Amino acid sequence: MTILVFGHKSPDTDSTGSPIIWAWYLSSVKGTPAEARLLGEPNTEAAFMLNRWDLEKPEIVETVEAGTPVVIVDTNNPAELPEGINDTDITAIIDHHKLVGGLETKGPIDIRIEPVACTATIMWKMIGDDMAQAPKAIKGAMLSCILSDTLEFRSPTTTQEDSAIAHALAEDLGVDIPAYAAEMFAAKSDVSAFSDAELLRMDSKEYEVGGKSFRVSVLETTSPETVLSRKADLMETMPLVAEEDGVDQVLLFVVDILNEESTMLIPNALTKQLAEASFATACGDADTVVLPGVVSRKKQIIPNLKL
Amino acid sequence: MTILVFGHKSPDTDSTGSPIIWAWYLSSVKGTPAEARLLGEPNTEAAFMLNRWDLEKPEIVETVEAGTPVVIVDTNNPAELPEGINDTDITAIIDHHKLVGGLETKGPIDIRIEPVACTATIMWKMIGDDMAQAPKAIKGAMLSCILSDTLEFRSPTTTQEDSAIAHALAEDLGVDIPAYAAEMFAAKSDVSAFSDAELLRMDSKEYEVGGKSFRVSVLETTSPETVLSRKADLMETMPLVAEEDGVDQVLLFVVDILNEESTMLIPNALTKQLAEASFATACGDADTVVLPGVVSRKKQIIPNLKL
Repeated sequence: MTILVFGHKSPDTDSTGSPIIWAWYLSSVKGTPAEARLLGEPNTEAAFMLNRWDLEKPEIVETVEAGTPVVIVDTNNPAELPEGINDTDITAIIDHHKLVGGLETKGPIDIRIEPVACTATIMWKMIGDDMAQAPKAIKGAMLSCILSDTLEFRSPTTTQEDSAIAHALAEDLGVDIPAYAAEMFAAKSDVSAFSDAELLRMDSKEYEVGGKSFRVSVLETTSPETVLSRKADLMETMPLVAEEDGVDQVLLFVVDILNEESTMLIPNALTKQLAEASFATACGDADTVVLPGVVSRKKQIIPNLKL
Repeated sequence: MTILVFGHKSPDTDSTGSPIIWAWYLSSVKGTPAEARLLGEPNTEAAFMLNRWDLEKPEIVETVEAGTPVVIVDTNNPAELPEGINDTDITAIIDHHKLVGGLETKGPIDIRIEPVACTATIMWKMIGDDMAQAPKAIKGAMLSCILSDTLEFRSPTTTQEDSAIAHALAEDLGVDIPAYAAEMFAAKSDVSAFSDAELLRMDSKEYEVGGKSFRVSVLETTSPETVLSRKADLMETMPLVAEEDGVDQVLLFVVDILNEESTMLIPNALTKQLAEASFATACGDADTVVLPGVVSRKKQIIPNLKL
């Protein structure tokens, strides 16, 4: 039975590339039939990666049948996976996020979670010497995943391993990292095709603090002004998305990749209170606040949130 | 702050040896202060290992203070760990059991779970070339863990990796595996010091099937007749233990290591029904039933239980 390999429901570059990498490894190296799947439409950066390395876009699925053998990558959170995920036959988990609890397996399986920036970094280590067999497209996907998740090594989630592996891959491929990363980030910054609600949900994680639930959304971009020009519409859409998704408030952090800062939207008093308590800043009457140095939701936003 | 390394609440050889191995690796190789702890009295085989390799018995603790940095080995089940385990600072998990769900971490950490027979096998791979620095006692503990968890390679949980690593360690140490394993199993078989209730709880996992809850206990021994001579008392004690522990029924499988079979006690109609449905056997009026080839709770008992 073919193993399905997939990441989370909002496929960014790592959650699109890592399933392709692992499906290649299982099928071409280990001789175990495996195919990548996506749980949603890839974002514009992920679509750029597929195109640049001539990789086929994996089939998008919403559900996975009970009993299907699967490998879960880039998440261990049941909320980010299809309903009934525990009824599938989970054969492995490869991830770099905190353990959320909730996934269960029927027997002992391979689980590898490491505090590095990127799933592809862990895969590179697991594949080991067999990387010699990897086609250019697989190496290109790996490089793309690492540059994306580390924001070209700017994110504080970046480890020495992520950086060393990306540089080795780039040299092997003859890719100029700054030029290639700039292309990737330009692709990610092209959000013209997305509605306001889509932007608010594109890269988002739910989080509870002080008895309130938040959808904590980030938009990583080299062109923050493009997003911020839609500020009024985005703020108007926030309560609609919050109600539809059953949370108290949507937060949006527009991450300026090149200048390494975030602009947080301040639509109301609750958000203002949260921003001031969490980031030791004063919002005044402004409807945005700039947070210097803040680029990582995992390391700098979520751990600081308080009311 | 010193990292505490511990396994589960019923310390067998792997759950006693693996914390010692990992605390050695962290403190002596990685330069991170770490100490092993036990969550209960080690069983007689684990005590034999400590004595044979001149290892200090780790301090036994019942609770771990919130915020303490810990490494959890040989389990990922909160029920087998101190209350409030999620309030400690879990820095790593190394295990070979199925993912139960329930452990949560505050940030991304190192998690390594593999479907091998023994935690020490995974540690050997993680330590890699640094094994050259390991003192004899650490290698001896590793060998003991693997021989214990694989029942000297008899258990169907044994993988090629467990076997290869044990043989490499034995050769390195100049240990004759059959002779050493016989000593270990003789130590495990000496249950004279334990009360009936202690025997029923010594190596036990709770499991639900058909709406009933069971405490599924195994006793691995080279001398099944020693345990079975206490059959009447054990059966009399079963309902008391079941009531105290809040389960419907205690099951006891006396695993004959050398003859690779189990004797299951049949104290009542519920147990008889379960045995006949699970193991395609007929109990007749006997108060025990022999299950040929059955030695592994994980692979052969739990997955087959039905009512």
